[in-house]
Amino acid sequence: MKDREIALFEAGIKLGALYHQFVGTPVSLESAEILEKAIERSISLQPFVESISVRLNREKIRERENLFGYAELTGDMIEVEVKVKVGEALVIASLRWDEEKKYPMMKVEELR
Amino acid sequence: MKDREIALFEAGIKLGALYHQFVGTPVSLESAEILEKAIERSISLQPFVESISVRLNREKIRERENLFGYAELTGDMIEVEVKVKVGEALVIASLRWDEEKKYPMMKVEELR
Amino acid sequence: MKDREIALFEAGIKLGALYHQFVGTPVSLESAEILEKAIERSISLQPFVESISVRLNREKIRERENLFGYAELTGDMIEVEVKVKVGEALVIASLRWDEEKKYPMMKVEELR
Amino acid sequence: MKDREIALFEAGIKLGALYHQFVGTPVSLESAEILEKAIERSISLQPFVESISVRLNREKIRERENLFGYAELTGDMIEVEVKVKVGEALVIASLRWDEEKKYPMMKVEELR
Repeated sequence: MKDREIALFEAGIKLGALYHQFVGTPVSLESAEILEKAIERSISLQPFVESISVRLNREKIRERENLFGYAELTGDMIEVEVKVKVGEALVIASLRWDEEKKYPMMKVEELR
Repeated sequence: MKDREIALFEAGIKLGALYHQFVGTPVSLESAEILEKAIERSISLQPFVESISVRLNREKIRERENLFGYAELTGDMIEVEVKVKVGEALVIASLRWDEEKKYPMMKVEELR
Repeated sequence: MKDREIALFEAGIKLGALYHQFVGTPVSLESAEILEKAIERSISLQPFVESISVRLNREKIRERENLFGYAELTGDMIEVEVKVKVGEALVIASLRWDEEKKYPMMKVEELR
Repeated sequence: MKDREIALFEAGIKLGALYHQFVGTPVSLESAEILEKAIERSISLQPFVESISVRLNREKIRERENLFGYAELTGDMIEVEVKVKVGEALVIASLRWDEEKKYPMMKVEELR
């Protein structure tokens, strides 16, 4: 296996893990920031993660608010960019909601 | 249903939810604190939660550290105390590892 | 603590656990049945569960289908009835989507 | 992006998703088989999955049994092989516990 190949595989792991670990978590406009940070810190611990940024869409949180003033984390709220480095190879991958496909698309944005 | 009865039921919900949402999360000595806070904030959003304290056992995290320097959140690391209030009724419930039973025991500590 | 009180607390645990363990699971019309059974079997293992029935709403699964022909398990799809018995005390509790509250309501249906 | 590259990324997603969705699920010797099947069916729904086999290690389940006669799904119990096909490219990837690293290793076994 080449480093580039491993990096692609590892980038996929990170996004799949993040999504399925945290979907369902109660979240509000007030708690969104600390949840973003906790998710970033958590996924950063995994092997080969160079950096990660997690952004929870406040507008979507507001739209999905229930009677008790909060929402549950769902795929349409989560925006992630993760950099994974294996040897000299770097992969930048993203998770972003695709409204047309109704799907939290995970994509390789860059591969070097 | 009396308030006390609802409070007992609601306290159970909170502990079951917390446990099964967050077990499996990557955690290290460095990230334990922000994860504690994110869990507290998240579960606080649920109805009837008066307060909650979450403590992740650092010693257990260290023991379970893998080759990459982190662990996964497991039942033996999590200590929780949650206060749930419904009307005038208050329940204090806890989650704490029972070494003998090998079990993350959830218990009602107080009921008023 | 009286048995009735413990039973109420335990019933809450089961519903909170079920919900947060399985929300996010990929599901389709074809896989709904085996997922229902696996969830039932899994939660039945927990202490004091007398019986449990889990029903995933096919109509909601169909509505939420993405371009790839499946959905993710969300709170509006899950209907549960669980019986929890502690000593002589029996609690029947349910989880059912409340469209008005936009909330997966957990309720004590019966307490004996 | 070439098909091979996408296939590697997609294979990673499947393993990360599977792991973090199901870790923590109550499981026993009796329920292991239906849980295996439900996990297989669930992950098969995701795009590009050609086939998947999930095996839960019975010996580990027995070892980890608590006082109530069941265990929780942990990384050391799960063995997975998944085939992901994108265009003409095929990736076979696995998840298997590495006792030395104390780690649920995810690996690309084959790339064509």
